Amino acid sequence: VRSKLTIKVGVVGGTGYTGVELLRLLAIHDEVEVVAVTSRGESGNPVSSLFPSLRGFLDIDFCDPESTDLSVCDVVFYATPNGIAMQQVPELIAKGVRVIDLAADFRIKDIPTWEKWYGMEHACPELVEKAVYGLCEINREQIKDAKLIANPGCYPTSVQLPLIPLLKKGYISSENIIADCKSGVSGAGRGAVVSSLMSEVNESFKAYGVSGHRHLPEIEQGLSEAANAEVQMVFTPHLVPMNRGILSTIYVDLKDTDAQTIQTYLEDFYKDEEFVDILPFGSLPETRSVKGANMCRIALHQPQGRNKLVIVSVIDNLVKGAAGQAIQNMNIMFGLKDDAGLQMPPLLP
Amino acid sequence: VRSKLTIKVGVVGGTGYTGVELLRLLAIHDEVEVVAVTSRGESGNPVSSLFPSLRGFLDIDFCDPESTDLSVCDVVFYATPNGIAMQQVPELIAKGVRVIDLAADFRIKDIPTWEKWYGMEHACPELVEKAVYGLCEINREQIKDAKLIANPGCYPTSVQLPLIPLLKKGYISSENIIADCKSGVSGAGRGAVVSSLMSEVNESFKAYGVSGHRHLPEIEQGLSEAANAEVQMVFTPHLVPMNRGILSTIYVDLKDTDAQTIQTYLEDFYKDEEFVDILPFGSLPETRSVKGANMCRIALHQPQGRNKLVIVSVIDNLVKGAAGQAIQNMNIMFGLKDDAGLQMPPLLP
Amino acid sequence: VRSKLTIKVGVVGGTGYTGVELLRLLAIHDEVEVVAVTSRGESGNPVSSLFPSLRGFLDIDFCDPESTDLSVCDVVFYATPNGIAMQQVPELIAKGVRVIDLAADFRIKDIPTWEKWYGMEHACPELVEKAVYGLCEINREQIKDAKLIANPGCYPTSVQLPLIPLLKKGYISSENIIADCKSGVSGAGRGAVVSSLMSEVNESFKAYGVSGHRHLPEIEQGLSEAANAEVQMVFTPHLVPMNRGILSTIYVDLKDTDAQTIQTYLEDFYKDEEFVDILPFGSLPETRSVKGANMCRIALHQPQGRNKLVIVSVIDNLVKGAAGQAIQNMNIMFGLKDDAGLQMPPLLP
Amino acid sequence: VRSKLTIKVGVVGGTGYTGVELLRLLAIHDEVEVVAVTSRGESGNPVSSLFPSLRGFLDIDFCDPESTDLSVCDVVFYATPNGIAMQQVPELIAKGVRVIDLAADFRIKDIPTWEKWYGMEHACPELVEKAVYGLCEINREQIKDAKLIANPGCYPTSVQLPLIPLLKKGYISSENIIADCKSGVSGAGRGAVVSSLMSEVNESFKAYGVSGHRHLPEIEQGLSEAANAEVQMVFTPHLVPMNRGILSTIYVDLKDTDAQTIQTYLEDFYKDEEFVDILPFGSLPETRSVKGANMCRIALHQPQGRNKLVIVSVIDNLVKGAAGQAIQNMNIMFGLKDDAGLQMPPLLP
Repeated sequence: VRSKLTIKVGVVGGTGYTGVELLRLLAIHDEVEVVAVTSRGESGNPVSSLFPSLRGFLDIDFCDPESTDLSVCDVVFYATPNGIAMQQVPELIAKGVRVIDLAADFRIKDIPTWEKWYGMEHACPELVEKAVYGLCEINREQIKDAKLIANPGCYPTSVQLPLIPLLKKGYISSENIIADCKSGVSGAGRGAVVSSLMSEVNESFKAYGVSGHRHLPEIEQGLSEAANAEVQMVFTPHLVPMNRGILSTIYVDLKDTDAQTIQTYLEDFYKDEEFVDILPFGSLPETRSVKGANMCRIALHQPQGRNKLVIVSVIDNLVKGAAGQAIQNMNIMFGLKDDAGLQMPPLLP
Repeated sequence: VRSKLTIKVGVVGGTGYTGVELLRLLAIHDEVEVVAVTSRGESGNPVSSLFPSLRGFLDIDFCDPESTDLSVCDVVFYATPNGIAMQQVPELIAKGVRVIDLAADFRIKDIPTWEKWYGMEHACPELVEKAVYGLCEINREQIKDAKLIANPGCYPTSVQLPLIPLLKKGYISSENIIADCKSGVSGAGRGAVVSSLMSEVNESFKAYGVSGHRHLPEIEQGLSEAANAEVQMVFTPHLVPMNRGILSTIYVDLKDTDAQTIQTYLEDFYKDEEFVDILPFGSLPETRSVKGANMCRIALHQPQGRNKLVIVSVIDNLVKGAAGQAIQNMNIMFGLKDDAGLQMPPLLP
Repeated sequence: VRSKLTIKVGVVGGTGYTGVELLRLLAIHDEVEVVAVTSRGESGNPVSSLFPSLRGFLDIDFCDPESTDLSVCDVVFYATPNGIAMQQVPELIAKGVRVIDLAADFRIKDIPTWEKWYGMEHACPELVEKAVYGLCEINREQIKDAKLIANPGCYPTSVQLPLIPLLKKGYISSENIIADCKSGVSGAGRGAVVSSLMSEVNESFKAYGVSGHRHLPEIEQGLSEAANAEVQMVFTPHLVPMNRGILSTIYVDLKDTDAQTIQTYLEDFYKDEEFVDILPFGSLPETRSVKGANMCRIALHQPQGRNKLVIVSVIDNLVKGAAGQAIQNMNIMFGLKDDAGLQMPPLLP
Repeated sequence: VRSKLTIKVGVVGGTGYTGVELLRLLAIHDEVEVVAVTSRGESGNPVSSLFPSLRGFLDIDFCDPESTDLSVCDVVFYATPNGIAMQQVPELIAKGVRVIDLAADFRIKDIPTWEKWYGMEHACPELVEKAVYGLCEINREQIKDAKLIANPGCYPTSVQLPLIPLLKKGYISSENIIADCKSGVSGAGRGAVVSSLMSEVNESFKAYGVSGHRHLPEIEQGLSEAANAEVQMVFTPHLVPMNRGILSTIYVDLKDTDAQTIQTYLEDFYKDEEFVDILPFGSLPETRSVKGANMCRIALHQPQGRNKLVIVSVIDNLVKGAAGQAIQNMNIMFGLKDDAGLQMPPLLP
């Protein structure tokens, strides 16, 4: 008998992995009422018929996006493919509904860069300017009053959380940065493509997008702003034969500051944050230590005492890398504590 | 700022998968305070150093079982290997502490049978008689006042929940019952044995214990009581290359009652139970529909309209098959709602 | 410098898992020359660009099925979806080309039954009659002279190899037979469907086709012929989160013959067969013991000395369950030893 | 009826994954007779009882190392833990037996370095000097006449094959080299340790040995020799939830030579090698493209046309990274073609 009264929530595109993860988390959020989950293909069917895991937890049918009035919502989450939200968001914003876009439509401030990497014309460049990049721990103040949140990408979250404070402070070089990142396959979405088949992914490991991946400009934008200079880095994503989890191994050049000072600084920087956990120096975080939870765990290493700092950062790509951070953004926007509805420990094993 | 005041809980043997699952669930149970987690080997170390997934959720050190006074607890969970609880429980019970044993020490009422299958002499047969078999939905009334709960085995939970009502009612034959069961590898525990290595289990599938498995007498005891006659069945466990989950495929002979009547009866039997979900006739439950959650989902089939009923039952072996059911038992014992602390939806994918 | 001169081979439909497995095995078969691999979509591309695993082993391009004259082949393998081979095979047979169909077009002798289960009209019922069911160890004599082989299904191979000799001999009851079968996901093919995605299959387990699966009539046909009476059985397929392998757990009622006699009989029945391995009584075969190899390993159990015989049978669904058995059929048809090109040990781990 | 007459082979330590992989490959090597497989623990048992995958392929019992005269062998493989071979090899060498050590005892030329990283005193430093580092394509001439081969580590094979030619030629900088490497779990061996359990490894990903791993000095030794200067690099191993396969992502600084010239040079360098495959520029090799096969596939990338070359290299850690390369070494030592007994295509999927 929870009093789910405070926030009326709509979810657009509830049939993908980001969508069902949003629903899993929203279903037990005490301050939330889910009033609409849209899907063109599943309209009229119970959400729990597509996702039996939600039977008993969320009793609502998918509704048709055309005939659903989302303006009754306080906030709408877009868990849609890139390019959808930008078509619909202006009208919602105009009606006073706040929006959190889990896709990439509003992440890149430079429109030509966005259009080059995403291969389409942007439908509302004027909103991009006003959108707040929802990396919660970095941009909390702007998020509070935001009308439109660009929820960060999964890889960018794992890479920027450790690097932004260090670049801002000038503790590491802005050159020679390499992010070697590894993700579980749910990051590729629930689309029916051969490359995501079990028999293609399981018992194999590969790099992809080595020559260029859309998260590169997103990360470089964040790092450049932090460094107050143009940062160019190498970003190599890899596909891990597992469902959930991202681990980023980040190589940076030390400048004059020793590794222990950096450790202490980072611990201090995030000491009041519930969802960023700086591990003891030399720790070896596993992705399963954050599975199902809204958490980023970070560890620093200085191999052989040489001049490279190696940073290992883990998140669950569907939680802190997507749905969890989106709800954290909602919590901040609506004056709740960051961890409202997000207090579950990771699932191990 | 939860008021964790009501129930003081001790956990004996907190380093296995059942133990860490108990801790995951207890950590967010509003009515519980975990006052002791014992481990001989890890004594003095923070629980979160062994299980980093619990960092930020459970701030307690392992304590030495020798020097820990568990009599301050309201209830103690034993997540130990078979044969440990029976050594220690009589003293605790005598001091008024209630006990929930997740091992098999108190599950089998017939002492010679227990001693044959478990290969040791029983240390306190008199307590076996008083122990209540903690299959919550079946034995709720006795559980309320129990001092000692024998928490059911994982396979037995998945097999008995569908069969007990049908045998009691006489709707199915008590002969020819076959339970072909499949479990993820966490059921084999966290012991360092070759047969549980990733390279041994992954990308392979096998039956084990075909000629005899300790859960056979446990299941036959429950079914015989329900049928009010000796039930002999075939039970074949298999090992699935995954971490969590049990699916039992159960074959029974129909008697005079048609399958639809059985479906309706079973739905009615469990209609007020939050943790047993009778799916629509002909459904195909997946283990992931209960991953991380205290839930048993059950579906009935009648292939080709012939005389066999096929029952498919899924649980998470670590939750409804162990730690979750143990906490559900605790809830019932202490007058809480069944679902206190157990309200999280399954993790998918 | 092998002398690949003897048999000119064509493969129709080389882009699925059965196709690539055929190519893997044919590439190192000393008596084979692969002269054509057709694919509408990949026509003109090197086979090794789609399957880099074959780089250096098979230097041939996919060719267009329309413009390729397969009548130059001595034998053509169809690794196509159901319903394709029956359109094209009559013309090839007429030209004197021998055909091995790895799909189901020619497996079921009763045309109405086939049409009911496969949902289409059969294009050449007259060829069905002449086709030989290529279960090598059972039908070797007919295979030698066959023009057209219906290569058995994967589940049917694993179930029939142990049961046919026992039913023929009358050692087991023809009633009450249950085959609880588990398969890796490659059996579902390389089609882009949501249900085969890594995130859908991995870390989960399910039954499917419980109410009816196309391999049921195929198995019942074989068992009925062996028993010389109509056999009805229960067949329940399950999906295992792994790429390759089938394990069938088969439950049969003993008649007057004791289990040891049956063990001895089965060992004797298959003593000259290289690809059927009767394990010592009570063994526990794992699917990995046949991974990548043309082999069926079988073990018998009599749980608790009761009246049920439990038979465990393992194959690699892509090898003895598809491509390997197809090549074994070819070997028999062309007077080679069964194991020509099939002598590789299983891959473990 | 193969004429396995040429080479009498002994295997010391046949119960681990490297051992069973050696046996899988030796069992079908036409020029080899396996005369002894030693194991203290399994002495007297058939090899195929421990590894049923070898039933029908290798009919030999494990023998006791104490009572077995290995001097009848032409060559002995050591598939033992580090520190065993160095105790026994001097005597064998003295008796004219050639030795291939798959462990690390003879890999590092600098004895103090070896003793520091392996934590023990070296038993025969004088043999280290004479041992040939068995990276076949690089050291073929010395291998031909070698009495003792130090078979390279798995990671070092994947990293050195692409880098050695480029450093020798001076095409890339010897500074700033980073090797971010990922391995399946079979690389951790068949020892019963918690960290290798299925439930610990599966559905998770982690880095390990970040601060220092024994393969670091081995790789630096090879690269330094190639560069004719001391090379220091960063080497970060990671554990992938799969059985087999290594993928190394290597980051190097370009000097004056453009990437296409480097591509052409590398293709030319390895053009006569059957087991090193330089893929087209910009390719994305998967570990499954080499699963079960003695092969290293390598691809080059120049992300965004910037100054870093990214090299992706894949091997099967148990084949080209261990047993396969060991047999390739044997082939070279005994005047056979490199690919004798090693001609099987990779297993996909």
